[in-house]
Amino acid sequence: MMIENPYYGQDGHGSYELRSIGDLQLEEGGIIRDCRLAVATFGALNAAGDNAVLVPTWYSGTSKIIEQAYIGRGRALDPDRYFIIVINQIGNGLSTSPHNTPMPGGQGHFPRVRIGDDVRAQHRLLTEQFGIDTLALVVGASMGAQQTYEWVVRFPDMVRRAAPIAGTAKTTMHNFLLVETLMDAIRSDLGFANGFYKSATEVREGLLRHAKMWAVMGWSTEFFASFRPAQLGFTSLDDFVVNFMFGYFMPMDPNDLLCMAWKWQHGDVSRHTGGDLAAALGRIKAKMYVLPMSHDMIFPPADCERECKLVPNAKFHVLSSIDGHLALFGTDPDFLGQLDGCLKELLATD
Amino acid sequence: MMIENPYYGQDGHGSYELRSIGDLQLEEGGIIRDCRLAVATFGALNAAGDNAVLVPTWYSGTSKIIEQAYIGRGRALDPDRYFIIVINQIGNGLSTSPHNTPMPGGQGHFPRVRIGDDVRAQHRLLTEQFGIDTLALVVGASMGAQQTYEWVVRFPDMVRRAAPIAGTAKTTMHNFLLVETLMDAIRSDLGFANGFYKSATEVREGLLRHAKMWAVMGWSTEFFASFRPAQLGFTSLDDFVVNFMFGYFMPMDPNDLLCMAWKWQHGDVSRHTGGDLAAALGRIKAKMYVLPMSHDMIFPPADCERECKLVPNAKFHVLSSIDGHLALFGTDPDFLGQLDGCLKELLATD
Repeated sequence: MMIENPYYGQDGHGSYELRSIGDLQLEEGGIIRDCRLAVATFGALNAAGDNAVLVPTWYSGTSKIIEQAYIGRGRALDPDRYFIIVINQIGNGLSTSPHNTPMPGGQGHFPRVRIGDDVRAQHRLLTEQFGIDTLALVVGASMGAQQTYEWVVRFPDMVRRAAPIAGTAKTTMHNFLLVETLMDAIRSDLGFANGFYKSATEVREGLLRHAKMWAVMGWSTEFFASFRPAQLGFTSLDDFVVNFMFGYFMPMDPNDLLCMAWKWQHGDVSRHTGGDLAAALGRIKAKMYVLPMSHDMIFPPADCERECKLVPNAKFHVLSSIDGHLALFGTDPDFLGQLDGCLKELLATD
Repeated sequence: MMIENPYYGQDGHGSYELRSIGDLQLEEGGIIRDCRLAVATFGALNAAGDNAVLVPTWYSGTSKIIEQAYIGRGRALDPDRYFIIVINQIGNGLSTSPHNTPMPGGQGHFPRVRIGDDVRAQHRLLTEQFGIDTLALVVGASMGAQQTYEWVVRFPDMVRRAAPIAGTAKTTMHNFLLVETLMDAIRSDLGFANGFYKSATEVREGLLRHAKMWAVMGWSTEFFASFRPAQLGFTSLDDFVVNFMFGYFMPMDPNDLLCMAWKWQHGDVSRHTGGDLAAALGRIKAKMYVLPMSHDMIFPPADCERECKLVPNAKFHVLSSIDGHLALFGTDPDFLGQLDGCLKELLATD
């Protein structure tokens, strides 16, 4: 059976289009039959075909938050100027995911997916169905940054500019462990039943633990010290943890989250070069802005800076926000302003 | 029954002396009958009675690690010059703790203990049994720093110098949440059985999750990026997580850890001043060195600096180590050297 989950769908996350790219052979050996990608587009491809911008999604995110927080007239991602294609990553609940794949291949049997699988799937979609052979920009945050790095290393001739925000090309050991603890929070719930629960509500305790850990790592100590939860409308720490953090994750599917988490853990562009990260990043031809966030506990600036030094044509710039990693939600308008400034500058380069 | 646990005892953590201070009425309303504090002393009280140094212990730590990593001839804490008294905190497994308290008051029924209870117990011991009425220095790290702050706010006339290392006077909201996730890791194990397990091994999964989370928060991303686990003798991330982190926590008692964790969460010297932290810290008469650690994810320097500014006679100095919070274990000799330098300077002040 598939898991009925009203959270995922056009009502909450539309509009998007479901596009099949056929069967997708996976790097880990499995296969996704009739792989469907949920795609939201804004604007139109110009006659020269050189104004396409690809935005891959982050852990737990969908095209909706990208649309709401990052796309708009006058913004860097302006649909009047660019053909903006937001592709939901495999496993995010809109595209093919454990919860919407029929048994026996769904739920706990869903195959392992890598960042490289997403990028190959996106490449197939863009080239075969949209007729796109050049991307003016690939920009993504967090797991979207992982996909951005994979794009410029795997298809260096297709991407003119790239902006990985708050994410890495190769998951660090520390980050790997951090994600492991997030996965443990869910898997340790007996209701998880190795992925064969009947409803996500059976994994409520695990999802709550997972949400609390995101409350710790996703924001920052300065965020709490500066009364940001109150400013966002929450009256106490409990109110914030339950009604913001748990409220966000509670309706999601545990297997979908774990599919993305495993993918996140194993992000590594140096798979293309026998483990040599410098060689992999040396392949990049895109003009790149590496954009970490000042108070990010998940992808600290230092991790991003080490990688940036290995990219031939890259600028390193730290976006400032005490909101930490989850400023990505759009909680800090000043952060969005800084980011727009960087992306406009990057888009203005040849 | 009491829980048999060979980890705690003179073999692994001696030598120390168990001293009863009688019944201890607790701030949360409970009582510890025949409260015993495990005390290790080094050196002797001088004739003037002015060379006593108190060292309270951190979460999961005992007097043994203090002895091994911080006390020695030529060190700042030199037993030839000072009478050094290391008092194990209530709940740490050597002093009165959930696991060594007979039922019905032990295990999951052990009462809630606050930092203030520890400090009142220590004060009683020092004044009534050691005849000490002045302390040349109180120095403690992490939860030891919490006790250090409590000492100088509660007994301002008794402490001449104080050095809280990598800890706070009032637990921040972020830190509270972080500790909550550590507690969740243990309590979510069905084997925990609300604190009424028959053996700590029944809580193995929970203790493993707790150890993994310490691996993430206790060190730093730079620690892993710089191959510090390999330098410490571990051949892989798994080896490090299992044989260092889990090896460290596995033999401990879950209720003992939770007793300390709750105490840590609720540390707050502003209880003395109706919630006014500035007023509480304004009481301090000791010369104080506030010493956070550069890469500490648990007590980031910014949290310590905010408090330091409220202390009348305090110097703020960040100790540098990529090992993060758990440099406290003594893994980084350079960190120990920096700390000794600071403490010697502080001890040389009038």
